[in-house]
Amino acid sequence: MPQVYNFAAGPAVLPAEVVKQVQQELTSYQKSGMSILEISHRSSLFTNLQTAAENDLRQLMQIPVDYDVLFLQGGATLQFTMTALNLAHKTGKIAFVDTGHWSQRAIQEASLLPDIKPTVIASGKESKFTALPDIPEISENFDYVHLTINNTIEGTMYHQLPVNLKHQSVVADMSSIILGYNYQVKDFDLIYAGAQKNIGPAGLTVVILKHELLKNIPDLPAMLSYPKQVKKNSTLNTPPVFAIYTAGLVFKWLLSQGGVAAMQQQNEIKAQLLYDEIANSKLYHSPVTVADRSLTNIPFVTGSKELDTEFVVRATEKGLLNLKGHRLVGGMRASLYNAMPLAGVKQLVEFMQQFEMNHEGVAK
Amino acid sequence: MPQVYNFAAGPAVLPAEVVKQVQQELTSYQKSGMSILEISHRSSLFTNLQTAAENDLRQLMQIPVDYDVLFLQGGATLQFTMTALNLAHKTGKIAFVDTGHWSQRAIQEASLLPDIKPTVIASGKESKFTALPDIPEISENFDYVHLTINNTIEGTMYHQLPVNLKHQSVVADMSSIILGYNYQVKDFDLIYAGAQKNIGPAGLTVVILKHELLKNIPDLPAMLSYPKQVKKNSTLNTPPVFAIYTAGLVFKWLLSQGGVAAMQQQNEIKAQLLYDEIANSKLYHSPVTVADRSLTNIPFVTGSKELDTEFVVRATEKGLLNLKGHRLVGGMRASLYNAMPLAGVKQLVEFMQQFEMNHEGVAK
Repeated sequence: MPQVYNFAAGPAVLPAEVVKQVQQELTSYQKSGMSILEISHRSSLFTNLQTAAENDLRQLMQIPVDYDVLFLQGGATLQFTMTALNLAHKTGKIAFVDTGHWSQRAIQEASLLPDIKPTVIASGKESKFTALPDIPEISENFDYVHLTINNTIEGTMYHQLPVNLKHQSVVADMSSIILGYNYQVKDFDLIYAGAQKNIGPAGLTVVILKHELLKNIPDLPAMLSYPKQVKKNSTLNTPPVFAIYTAGLVFKWLLSQGGVAAMQQQNEIKAQLLYDEIANSKLYHSPVTVADRSLTNIPFVTGSKELDTEFVVRATEKGLLNLKGHRLVGGMRASLYNAMPLAGVKQLVEFMQQFEMNHEGVAK
Repeated sequence: MPQVYNFAAGPAVLPAEVVKQVQQELTSYQKSGMSILEISHRSSLFTNLQTAAENDLRQLMQIPVDYDVLFLQGGATLQFTMTALNLAHKTGKIAFVDTGHWSQRAIQEASLLPDIKPTVIASGKESKFTALPDIPEISENFDYVHLTINNTIEGTMYHQLPVNLKHQSVVADMSSIILGYNYQVKDFDLIYAGAQKNIGPAGLTVVILKHELLKNIPDLPAMLSYPKQVKKNSTLNTPPVFAIYTAGLVFKWLLSQGGVAAMQQQNEIKAQLLYDEIANSKLYHSPVTVADRSLTNIPFVTGSKELDTEFVVRATEKGLLNLKGHRLVGGMRASLYNAMPLAGVKQLVEFMQQFEMNHEGVAK
């Protein structure tokens, strides 16, 4: 098997060691004679691994004790609905920061609920979402402010909590940056993330929420209710056992690598390598404002659609996979999550240089 | 590793060949150099396996062309909510047949929705759910009748569609019997099933629904909307790739074994072996009315709580695992899903005989 590097935005590359371990113990988990695919969610085998996964995640993200951790299903898209259903019960008003596609999806989904009024308090629309909008001081009363921390498609990212959100109740979509950058959980009331980028395989959603939020939430259907899920410790019904198990292995791998601070450092090195190549080249261009650039999702273009297409084809031939940009922005996109090794980024940069040499004279 | 037999009610035993295949190709799916855990749901690798899984399921269950097949998340519990939200929009009235715990959960979840009126049209309460209730002729107008086809906890099962439901719109929870008994899809408007019993690993829910139901459904949040999920072919957001992949392997295994008819035959042989042992013994007793007995979930008791406990302990020592009955009914329960080999049931029956010999004189 040739070495390949998978730059997909998600589902994405996992640590090779984790995949190997899953493979090794797949037919008999912990010498039980049963596969992890077959064990009951009411067994101590599962309870132990879920507890370990939660504790390791708490250690990695330094999650304060007054926050609950949930392992759910349905992806960020179901969280668009759940956050609004659970948390917008005082004023019914939610403030959204529009940073592109995924924040717009969150707004759309909230709009579908009765008695919910989404308000866009800031938008990157003018810059075509190549920059993050300034967030004004907020005087109106909202149940919470929703923020997409990292914009997987547009390649922008909040490197810290915007100053005008410091005293707000903030709900954050961290799907494509969680565990990759050292955010402070205490800055947020609720964080959610689909697993299929920096956590584990698809089919799992992690939710981290301040325990005091659980007060006064209406009596919702069980699978849509944070209080009911918290009360049953995410095992209100059968949870996605295998995805939680694999996420747990990823958490252990992250701890062995030095945790989130070490990941952030690595991610900064990897991203800088690619951004430098883009800056130094005559062929490649990043549309994103420098200060707002994402560490994990890096879109770039040549300026020619034909050349972009050729780039992706030739890269694929070299084992550099899934570099095609999202259809909404075109061009290329390299996703450099925690599990993408530095060697992969180096190989990508070398390929970019070679490709540029082969197309000399094509202006930027 | 000693051979064990896993009699859990779900997550449950999978075909050994399937687990082996998952293990073998885990580090490189279809020679892609990527694990199935890493492939994009927008890749042809995934699209092809999803299409194959759907086609194989259609063949196995002879699903008519005017039915859609969905691969969702959230388990049967989310279907309790989704069925009501999507389908109870004409009269708001749903008829429920109360056959025990899981049908009651369905009723509870429907009750939490505004403008929904659940009506229990028949109940097995009088028999303590050891028998299925007669279903009366229905003259009132309901949006649909909800039926739990196999009752995992109580060990009862509808062997065919009750005659008074023949001209009704029927929604069926088939979680613990799907693909194990030859039901006719055309008898139902909608069938749902959590995967973790007869389909694959936990974290996947299969929904089969008549296409014409999709008309006039209100504009619901995307993850709760059948029309939106159908329109996007279950990839409205990132689906549980690995669970769909593994389910696909189970479907291929079922086809190789002769399909659902062959499975039903095997399941009847396995169940009969155990029911005969119960009938012939002086120690064991099944509380369930003979005509209503499940093929897949078989509860039994000794009549003594201490002896029940000892049975489970001794069985576990012999590698006969997860025989403890559900806390609501106590005693023992053997779940004999498709992937439970005949050899496992034979070994259980032998153990039961040995255990009875060792406790001779203990009256039934």
